[in-house]
Amino acid sequence: MSIAVLGAGSWGTTYAKVLADAGQDVVLWARRRDVAEAITARRQNAEYLPGVVLPELLRSTSDPREALAGAATVVLAVPSQSLRHNLTAWRGLLPADATLVSLAKGVELGTLSRMSEVIAEVAGVGADRVAVVSGPNLAKEIAQEQPTATVIACQDHDRAVDLQRRSTTGYFRPYTITDVVGCEIGGACKNVIALSCGMAAGLGFGANTLATLITRGLAETARLGAALGADPMTLAGLAGLGDLVATCSSPLSRNRTFGERLGRGESLAQAQAAAHGQVAEGVKSCSSIRDLAARHGVEMPITEVVHRVCHDGFHPGEMAGELIGRKTRPER
Amino acid sequence: MSIAVLGAGSWGTTYAKVLADAGQDVVLWARRRDVAEAITARRQNAEYLPGVVLPELLRSTSDPREALAGAATVVLAVPSQSLRHNLTAWRGLLPADATLVSLAKGVELGTLSRMSEVIAEVAGVGADRVAVVSGPNLAKEIAQEQPTATVIACQDHDRAVDLQRRSTTGYFRPYTITDVVGCEIGGACKNVIALSCGMAAGLGFGANTLATLITRGLAETARLGAALGADPMTLAGLAGLGDLVATCSSPLSRNRTFGERLGRGESLAQAQAAAHGQVAEGVKSCSSIRDLAARHGVEMPITEVVHRVCHDGFHPGEMAGELIGRKTRPER
Repeated sequence: MSIAVLGAGSWGTTYAKVLADAGQDVVLWARRRDVAEAITARRQNAEYLPGVVLPELLRSTSDPREALAGAATVVLAVPSQSLRHNLTAWRGLLPADATLVSLAKGVELGTLSRMSEVIAEVAGVGADRVAVVSGPNLAKEIAQEQPTATVIACQDHDRAVDLQRRSTTGYFRPYTITDVVGCEIGGACKNVIALSCGMAAGLGFGANTLATLITRGLAETARLGAALGADPMTLAGLAGLGDLVATCSSPLSRNRTFGERLGRGESLAQAQAAAHGQVAEGVKSCSSIRDLAARHGVEMPITEVVHRVCHDGFHPGEMAGELIGRKTRPER
Repeated sequence: MSIAVLGAGSWGTTYAKVLADAGQDVVLWARRRDVAEAITARRQNAEYLPGVVLPELLRSTSDPREALAGAATVVLAVPSQSLRHNLTAWRGLLPADATLVSLAKGVELGTLSRMSEVIAEVAGVGADRVAVVSGPNLAKEIAQEQPTATVIACQDHDRAVDLQRRSTTGYFRPYTITDVVGCEIGGACKNVIALSCGMAAGLGFGANTLATLITRGLAETARLGAALGADPMTLAGLAGLGDLVATCSSPLSRNRTFGERLGRGESLAQAQAAAHGQVAEGVKSCSSIRDLAARHGVEMPITEVVHRVCHDGFHPGEMAGELIGRKTRPER
């Protein structure tokens, strides 16, 4: 039984490498035929993982039918806001009883659905068939085989353990949990907090401010998680705190880098141009997370500030007071 | 009523500046007469805070009697392992009913006492007269007036609020709590975790590993805190997570820098020589914290590894497997 990984960006390609290194028969779907051919023939994904030699066990195709045929596990590695569109096209090809795995981190605009909810809805499967992989997982470091831990969450713990077994290597260590909600909320919110950390760095603030934003950012993430039924321990763990710290502190993080440009005074359009035309995921998710928080009556002041900067034309400098907090009071 | 700050290192001098900027009449005691004279006459502490102009309201003396006369608040800013010795000498000079404030972060070797316990014991006062200041507070950034939050903990909440009022400025925002134990355990353990993060960086590991060590390091800190009666929310806040992230991610952190040298293969003696003859605080505290954990039956695997490297001659490279964790299992 093979594993299909759908999406050959940096994280999809890296997770496909992990699976192949763990001995699995992996087929990686790439949208572009030339990318698929380069991966199969030259063992390279030059655009997303330059310099990384991909394993022999990893094949690639641009035909989703070929990737999905006979797959026991289907890993969805497309951007969060296009997951619904892509999965709708693949729906008829999904093998019965396959575990559907989300690598996407975000909350869908409009519906305010988490990625596992989008998957269950579009694929017409129970929530217990959907797993989520999330943790302090900068793709480039894992592709270089730096030792990394992650979390695999699934309501059906046996499916989580199965995927854990299929993706454990000498450099990649997954831990299992059943709290899918906490895992996804941690993954979605950290992109927004990373934008705020980038803005602060762009404004010239140092480690004290970074640490304050991470601390308060995790607190507002945990408040949203609690309102949605997440286990607070998930957000204190690798998929919450761990992912947040990795994303906020690394220059490899797209969201942090994007925020830094905004903090230095660039417009959204300028920052987008510098990022090869892409906006960072947090720019989109700050709106859907803000709406989700409002629906549940949860205060998320950092998310609110990021939203105002990204979508209401405020400059981060105007928002600095809000970002770091100005009122003296008890801590809680 | 004046405030005495005893100890003119970087944090003592910086906190004295904060108090003066908040309008307090501050007398800073420096061990060396030339340092005291330079602070009073030239508004500089060139050794610890080069380039920083100290406020007019800040006077300095090398005579503890002069510093302590009429002080309503006494701030103790000497290194943790010499606090008992210093305070014993000052005991007879402490004004009755003064709030005694600890800036020291550590656990005393031998007695395994927290700093507030040492202060209450040596000064012969109730625990409710001792306050602790702790948070994501890299002194150099605060001295540059970068916006920073902190926590003031005191069992007597009124004393915490009084100190909050005396040390609130446009760039320094204290929050009050009553959980002294959590505040001190967070401050002591973070130095040890920062050593481990430095070691990992010295070994060439990136942000994924850093984030994993911070996450698991906070988890073991919280376990120790829980055993000692701390509120878990304190460790999730500025004095736990916040301080930990600031210390572990900044190149300004002495403990992180010290660990980095050990990770690159330097001996303890070499790293000490490079740090002007001083060992980092975590090198001492890893032993007392390990003993405290053993006394309470708490597992602290990262602290254990740091102890072995610092005191049992292991190389960080040999311990890398222990540092990042090798067994697959549920996250908790």
